[in-house]
Amino acid sequence: MNQIHAYIDRHEARNTEELLDFLRIPSVSARSEHREDTRTAARWLAERMQDAGLNATVHETPGHPVVLGEWLGAGENTRTLLIYGHYDVQPPEPLELWTTPPFEPALRDGRLFARGSVDDKGQLYLHIKALQAHLKVHGRLPVNVIVIAEGEEEVGSANLMPFVSSNTERLRCDAVVISDSSMLAPGMPTIGASLRGLAYFQVNVRGPASDLHSGSYGGAVLNPATALARIIASFHDENGHIAIPGFYDNVKAAKDYADQIRTLPFDEKVFLNETGSAALGGETGFTTFERLWIRPTCEVNGLLSGYTGEGSKTVLPSRAMAKVSCRLVPDQDPERIQKLFVEHVRNVAPAGVTVDVEIMHGGKPWRAKLGGTLYDAASKALQHAFGRPVIYAGEGGSIPIVPEFESVLGAPVLLMGFGLPGENAHAPDEWLSLENYRKGTHAAAALLEEFARSE
Amino acid sequence: MNQIHAYIDRHEARNTEELLDFLRIPSVSARSEHREDTRTAARWLAERMQDAGLNATVHETPGHPVVLGEWLGAGENTRTLLIYGHYDVQPPEPLELWTTPPFEPALRDGRLFARGSVDDKGQLYLHIKALQAHLKVHGRLPVNVIVIAEGEEEVGSANLMPFVSSNTERLRCDAVVISDSSMLAPGMPTIGASLRGLAYFQVNVRGPASDLHSGSYGGAVLNPATALARIIASFHDENGHIAIPGFYDNVKAAKDYADQIRTLPFDEKVFLNETGSAALGGETGFTTFERLWIRPTCEVNGLLSGYTGEGSKTVLPSRAMAKVSCRLVPDQDPERIQKLFVEHVRNVAPAGVTVDVEIMHGGKPWRAKLGGTLYDAASKALQHAFGRPVIYAGEGGSIPIVPEFESVLGAPVLLMGFGLPGENAHAPDEWLSLENYRKGTHAAAALLEEFARSE
Repeated sequence: MNQIHAYIDRHEARNTEELLDFLRIPSVSARSEHREDTRTAARWLAERMQDAGLNATVHETPGHPVVLGEWLGAGENTRTLLIYGHYDVQPPEPLELWTTPPFEPALRDGRLFARGSVDDKGQLYLHIKALQAHLKVHGRLPVNVIVIAEGEEEVGSANLMPFVSSNTERLRCDAVVISDSSMLAPGMPTIGASLRGLAYFQVNVRGPASDLHSGSYGGAVLNPATALARIIASFHDENGHIAIPGFYDNVKAAKDYADQIRTLPFDEKVFLNETGSAALGGETGFTTFERLWIRPTCEVNGLLSGYTGEGSKTVLPSRAMAKVSCRLVPDQDPERIQKLFVEHVRNVAPAGVTVDVEIMHGGKPWRAKLGGTLYDAASKALQHAFGRPVIYAGEGGSIPIVPEFESVLGAPVLLMGFGLPGENAHAPDEWLSLENYRKGTHAAAALLEEFARSE
Repeated sequence: MNQIHAYIDRHEARNTEELLDFLRIPSVSARSEHREDTRTAARWLAERMQDAGLNATVHETPGHPVVLGEWLGAGENTRTLLIYGHYDVQPPEPLELWTTPPFEPALRDGRLFARGSVDDKGQLYLHIKALQAHLKVHGRLPVNVIVIAEGEEEVGSANLMPFVSSNTERLRCDAVVISDSSMLAPGMPTIGASLRGLAYFQVNVRGPASDLHSGSYGGAVLNPATALARIIASFHDENGHIAIPGFYDNVKAAKDYADQIRTLPFDEKVFLNETGSAALGGETGFTTFERLWIRPTCEVNGLLSGYTGEGSKTVLPSRAMAKVSCRLVPDQDPERIQKLFVEHVRNVAPAGVTVDVEIMHGGKPWRAKLGGTLYDAASKALQHAFGRPVIYAGEGGSIPIVPEFESVLGAPVLLMGFGLPGENAHAPDEWLSLENYRKGTHAAAALLEEFARSE
């Protein structure tokens, strides 16, 4: 292994250069105008996999392609590790809030700023570099490896699971490893213990047929923006508790996990600084980590109605729109939450406007089955790379395919993330710690060895 | 007078052609990119006034110019009529909802479609054409006339009253006539009996320093869009009654006016068709005309927060903005309402977000002092042009300068409008009835004669 780690150290500059190339491709999966860019990112990734010594293939789907990189030379009697990541990125808007342009990667203070740096190109690519180190030094890997990279994670992964389900033989594996999450704090190697699920909606309120003069008609025609605000205000009570009937029915208390969460260090000042918030917020009676990891949410992601330009316009809007998403915790079911949400909106919608709810993507929550050879191997690999014992922490975000991988492939999933608090994933000035990129590469290389050894 | 009416009839096509030219100038006063267009409209108007036989001058202000057209040949012992109008228009957005482009006037079914057609270029220009008819036929007017046209009505008329106050000698008059309102129904000549006032605000809510990942932070950071929705929801109770403390303190009961309003014909079907609404809405216990004319409102004019593009983005927005305007009735005072609104928003704003309220333009409500020679003359002129007795109706909109004219010039104001229900002022597909443009020109010409005669 020393030779492999030496190889990684020797190629540090090149590994970073290549990641910069990856980050320059604006693979925004949500935007039709970036369709070709997203394909370019898939092809680029396949070429780098091939260079690394994997057998790379690009697979068409009804949406963006799935990229596979395979090395099965360890033989049928050796275990197989499946590494998952995604090469698509979030839309970069609002552009004016980026210090440097989102697709022109920039290094500042040991941080690599670019859309997709931490979510997830950097965290995916460090695995490719770890595999390459093994293959270049020893001409082989200690276990069989399949890398699967999709281009639709940021838009709901609609075509990934159909692909996986159609290829269960080819993708048969003993464990799945995903690096698309964060460490609790710098220098604290972290294994993900839970994920929240997701149910995403668009609420459309329609009033008059077209925008009206707010003087000539205001007072006698229901205002769809006011109606929308009243609907949104009905989502929570004064304590930040979600007021949609039935919403908490399947929220499991998980007392042991909550107890463990309370032992983790939380620094309020760091959190406020990281978010730029004036004060902690949220549901009364819960700590911040509980609010983030084991309590569900109902958040407005976007609002649009009427006149939003410079100055004033006395218009009674014809329409109002809100994007709303709920983060779910075990054992909430996205489909049941979708049903409850739609029913609630229908019940509180005032007469005189038309309200419809579009159900957008959703995903199940997840809790790790800690322990076993996979988690032991990961603990050792991370401790090796970071020089400290791992901690187990939740993740407020969602990776809907985690529970799906477990159910379709019948293999446990390991979340071994190298992001950091304040990394601005999904926001302007997203960044990846270069130190974590390097240490993550070492950890990924060590994981192969530890996983083989634990057999 | 017959010769004058014959002159107007003979020049009908030309009068319309000239108005089309006026409407082609995109004099959007709210937009800095249309600054030059707005000046072009002022110059165009001055040239047409000069052609009509008035002495036209363009007066610079800190904003858009004021255009004056004067004819004082009737002598000091004859009364003076001041005609007010505005040559600026509302922003045309959303452009995609116009059947034909807003600044390419189009005739369909006797309607002239263009931004500014009814509000207020058409209604202003018909007075110029009426004056021209008198001057071309008789070489004189029966009374002295001053036309004053501003370019900032749609942005709050900040520079008009300073101009009027600095020129009270030059603008001395016995009555002010304004055509910037609507008739109650086609064929029903209408004199405006009341106007609502206005208090316009922008509410800005700031949460985290930048947009955050709604998974990683949702639940522990207050969402500014949710906070804004809760603030807006606090503006009304379940009966559509405004719940801002003190809001109704100075609303005068005006029982006689309310009684008169109830005698006017209201056709619910026509109103719903005109607005494209599914149902009547508003404050419980009041009729539609009462809700529009003698009850105040608090309306959302625009909403913006977070991600509003295609698809979904799981973002916890950094900011949320609402444009909100209150329509006021006698004897509400805009400054007092501004104070109450700001106080209320401050009181209901949740901790954990920063809320500020920008006070934008405002204007006082107004009630006509019906009766007297001015109103008698207008009744006769309108009856002559439309062949039916006038009715007195309220107007839900605001013309803030009406009460200001009365107080600064000490002259009564007459609202003689030629718009129609459903004319889409401030909305896509704004139109002016060509029949009303023609009859309005006759009425304006007759008003001069009747006003002179009533001396």
